[in-house]
Amino acid sequence: MGTMFSAGEYVVLLDEKDRKYLVRLEARKFSTDLGVLDLGELIGKEPGAVVKTHLGREFIALRPSRADVLEKIRRAPQIMLPKDAAQIVAMTGVGPGSRVADCGTGSGALAIFLGSLVRPNGHVFSYENREEFASIARKNVEMAGLSDVITIRIRDVLTEGIDEGDLDLVTIDMGGPELVVPKVKEALKIGGYVAVFSPCIEPVQRVCEVMRSEGFREISTVECLVREIEVRPGATRPSTRMIAHTGYITVGRRVR
Amino acid sequence: MGTMFSAGEYVVLLDEKDRKYLVRLEARKFSTDLGVLDLGELIGKEPGAVVKTHLGREFIALRPSRADVLEKIRRAPQIMLPKDAAQIVAMTGVGPGSRVADCGTGSGALAIFLGSLVRPNGHVFSYENREEFASIARKNVEMAGLSDVITIRIRDVLTEGIDEGDLDLVTIDMGGPELVVPKVKEALKIGGYVAVFSPCIEPVQRVCEVMRSEGFREISTVECLVREIEVRPGATRPSTRMIAHTGYITVGRRVR
Amino acid sequence: MGTMFSAGEYVVLLDEKDRKYLVRLEARKFSTDLGVLDLGELIGKEPGAVVKTHLGREFIALRPSRADVLEKIRRAPQIMLPKDAAQIVAMTGVGPGSRVADCGTGSGALAIFLGSLVRPNGHVFSYENREEFASIARKNVEMAGLSDVITIRIRDVLTEGIDEGDLDLVTIDMGGPELVVPKVKEALKIGGYVAVFSPCIEPVQRVCEVMRSEGFREISTVECLVREIEVRPGATRPSTRMIAHTGYITVGRRVR
Amino acid sequence: MGTMFSAGEYVVLLDEKDRKYLVRLEARKFSTDLGVLDLGELIGKEPGAVVKTHLGREFIALRPSRADVLEKIRRAPQIMLPKDAAQIVAMTGVGPGSRVADCGTGSGALAIFLGSLVRPNGHVFSYENREEFASIARKNVEMAGLSDVITIRIRDVLTEGIDEGDLDLVTIDMGGPELVVPKVKEALKIGGYVAVFSPCIEPVQRVCEVMRSEGFREISTVECLVREIEVRPGATRPSTRMIAHTGYITVGRRVR
Repeated sequence: MGTMFSAGEYVVLLDEKDRKYLVRLEARKFSTDLGVLDLGELIGKEPGAVVKTHLGREFIALRPSRADVLEKIRRAPQIMLPKDAAQIVAMTGVGPGSRVADCGTGSGALAIFLGSLVRPNGHVFSYENREEFASIARKNVEMAGLSDVITIRIRDVLTEGIDEGDLDLVTIDMGGPELVVPKVKEALKIGGYVAVFSPCIEPVQRVCEVMRSEGFREISTVECLVREIEVRPGATRPSTRMIAHTGYITVGRRVR
Repeated sequence: MGTMFSAGEYVVLLDEKDRKYLVRLEARKFSTDLGVLDLGELIGKEPGAVVKTHLGREFIALRPSRADVLEKIRRAPQIMLPKDAAQIVAMTGVGPGSRVADCGTGSGALAIFLGSLVRPNGHVFSYENREEFASIARKNVEMAGLSDVITIRIRDVLTEGIDEGDLDLVTIDMGGPELVVPKVKEALKIGGYVAVFSPCIEPVQRVCEVMRSEGFREISTVECLVREIEVRPGATRPSTRMIAHTGYITVGRRVR
Repeated sequence: MGTMFSAGEYVVLLDEKDRKYLVRLEARKFSTDLGVLDLGELIGKEPGAVVKTHLGREFIALRPSRADVLEKIRRAPQIMLPKDAAQIVAMTGVGPGSRVADCGTGSGALAIFLGSLVRPNGHVFSYENREEFASIARKNVEMAGLSDVITIRIRDVLTEGIDEGDLDLVTIDMGGPELVVPKVKEALKIGGYVAVFSPCIEPVQRVCEVMRSEGFREISTVECLVREIEVRPGATRPSTRMIAHTGYITVGRRVR
Repeated sequence: MGTMFSAGEYVVLLDEKDRKYLVRLEARKFSTDLGVLDLGELIGKEPGAVVKTHLGREFIALRPSRADVLEKIRRAPQIMLPKDAAQIVAMTGVGPGSRVADCGTGSGALAIFLGSLVRPNGHVFSYENREEFASIARKNVEMAGLSDVITIRIRDVLTEGIDEGDLDLVTIDMGGPELVVPKVKEALKIGGYVAVFSPCIEPVQRVCEVMRSEGFREISTVECLVREIEVRPGATRPSTRMIAHTGYITVGRRVR
């Protein structure tokens, strides 16, 4: 891939206040509250190119990073935040080449996060039993440019299980995770991890019990809090409000 | 690579209480407080194999995950924790194929974390001006099996800068980060990120000011806290003690 | 004071959803979104009495606790929260009989918190240089029934200092706290405390430096975070959002 | 009480590094790692007096604050910390004149905290069924100078309940708190509070259910985290380690 922007690709537009738009490049107008700009102008330009609205306000065009994509994808409620997806990466061994099953696609945020890290030889198989979510997720995966790395299957994992085997990681972000754990255990490599995300503590308790009785090891539960700091000259402080809780992450490892 | 353990590779040994050893497989004895075991027995076995000490205590052998390696590498004081490395991944776009410069190798924990994610086509160039740290880091990188992905250079970035260009990410975990930022800016791709790790707030303040004056955008500072939850039947609670602060992560993005 | 409600006193009205009103008892109508109720009905009743709106919805009348008053007083922006006032109490020795100067009354929340604890023989002298705040604070103090324990003085402590001596505690919640500390030092008893509240870290740094050079001892700075837990059957979790930062509390002690 | 130190009273001795001793004044030697000092020298001196060891090191003598006493009392494991006691004060209306029952005295830290705030006309009735704890608590109460405000009763509240009525607050810090709540409800004033401290989440769940079924209102559960900040010139940061969890505080209010 060359460095010039091509028609059809997604770009990030950054306004003067660091507000961000993720748009597909086409010969069309794009309206913002700072005026209208002509997306076609960017085709053939390089990242960092500036485009002006009819009011003269400047936008900078960049090739989207994973952070951009995850910030701007279409969201179902309760999308998994990058902080939690990253913590799953930290606690397991997932990376380039890993084979992952993702139970409970939702809007695909976790699948995209992991998919962007298992490229080019790994794969994420993502299961979702609600068609409307699967549909949103597919669009998001396409926008992230990860359609070849992520396969979304419409299926109820609770009743039907998963197809794959020899997996490095299985993630579970859906109701009844304690029922899913036994169903996916055999699909894991020896030494592979299962990671469960649960907003409430009761399913965590049930999941830990099931993991223990299924012989998982190195079971641990954490909560990840990310606090924003406002750094201004003479007025540095943590932000007044924060997202104080998204969910608990419980990881276990198959050893036999 | 086959699935059987070979002489010379590193394996993880897990005892009955989930305590972990990272050892090189050779025909030799290995002493633990549960007795002595014969490592040679594991050669030719598969992950999940059990080896017994002369006291009959069992250890399970696994192929090490990145999480294992980072838990067990030789440490200089103040190693960067996986939670913080993962947060840098979350806030930027680093992944397979990324080119990264890592200023301040230390014992190599961040280089290893990132190196394991940029494989096979990316690279981490890691700079350290203290020979003894570089030496520890090299051994850790070798233990992590990432010698082909991570290059450690002994150099003072503050005075000599870095060699590479067209980078996706530059990380800075060393004194005087505000002096490093201008030196590495030109080495970044347009759209690339710089990420600074600082235990104290004063360098964060200086770094943010420099980033602003150098035209970096989307500057943000966060702190990542990971809280362990002890999940026991009828007695679930956050751990009494936690690592309450490691450092602040400040990210900025080059846009022109 | 008898236990029956009298005309003129403040009562708390609690609706079916635990929403709370703090009202003065008089023979008048009081409108809520659950209908209109007749406050006069409560005169002569006892705490726990139920009064119905014209729509038949029930409100329970209680004698206000300090927690009620602080929740419902008229607020200027950035009122000090009970969690922080309580932490000041925890870190110092303030209690019944204490003599306190409170620099920066604001809407009087801290003065009320402390005033309610130094009764009946202690006193809070509260200084505010903005007339409009002093006026709000006076009404709040009256509503809290603490007019005999709290004296509000309109004065700029920065330029004019304070009148009292032999104080157990001086609190500072205003701009330029590092300039106030030396001005109030002599007003403290030997063994007495100064407590500074600052949203940003820079004044904390200056205050600590001044405290050190003025010979204060046992200097310490803390931040107090209170996290709400939503306890519902099968769905227990910390609240999604929280007030992540109000301010830092720095305490020092005069020893000579 | 005059301001001069008298024989028999407790004083705080502060060494050069702010380490603290709480000692009874008598004509005797007191050994520290900075040398031996003669306590008798302090009798008749005023707070702030300096006493030197035989090695010439200086200690400052102060009249103890509540913070001092709570820091230095004899401790059973799992003493309630001032941050949590203060949060109970913040969430309820306890103060001078309040009548409190304290179920589960332990080493008396909560009783002392509350006793120091309900003086001179209030009272704390503290219940403990383990003689050895009651004995430690009595000594601590005496050291705090609160023997006239705090009554310790040796009794199992679970089976025998409490004697008092018309209480402003009942605190519960013992096993089986959900069984204690119904037993103490009638002892509360209308508008009074019950506050339960539990390290684990399961008793919190049971307590909330019981509070709801017993008709308590304004039920809420919080966790209070206090973070220390190390403020040093150019090197300001939160402490590396903190007490991350002591317990949950659940408060409810009797309304009828």
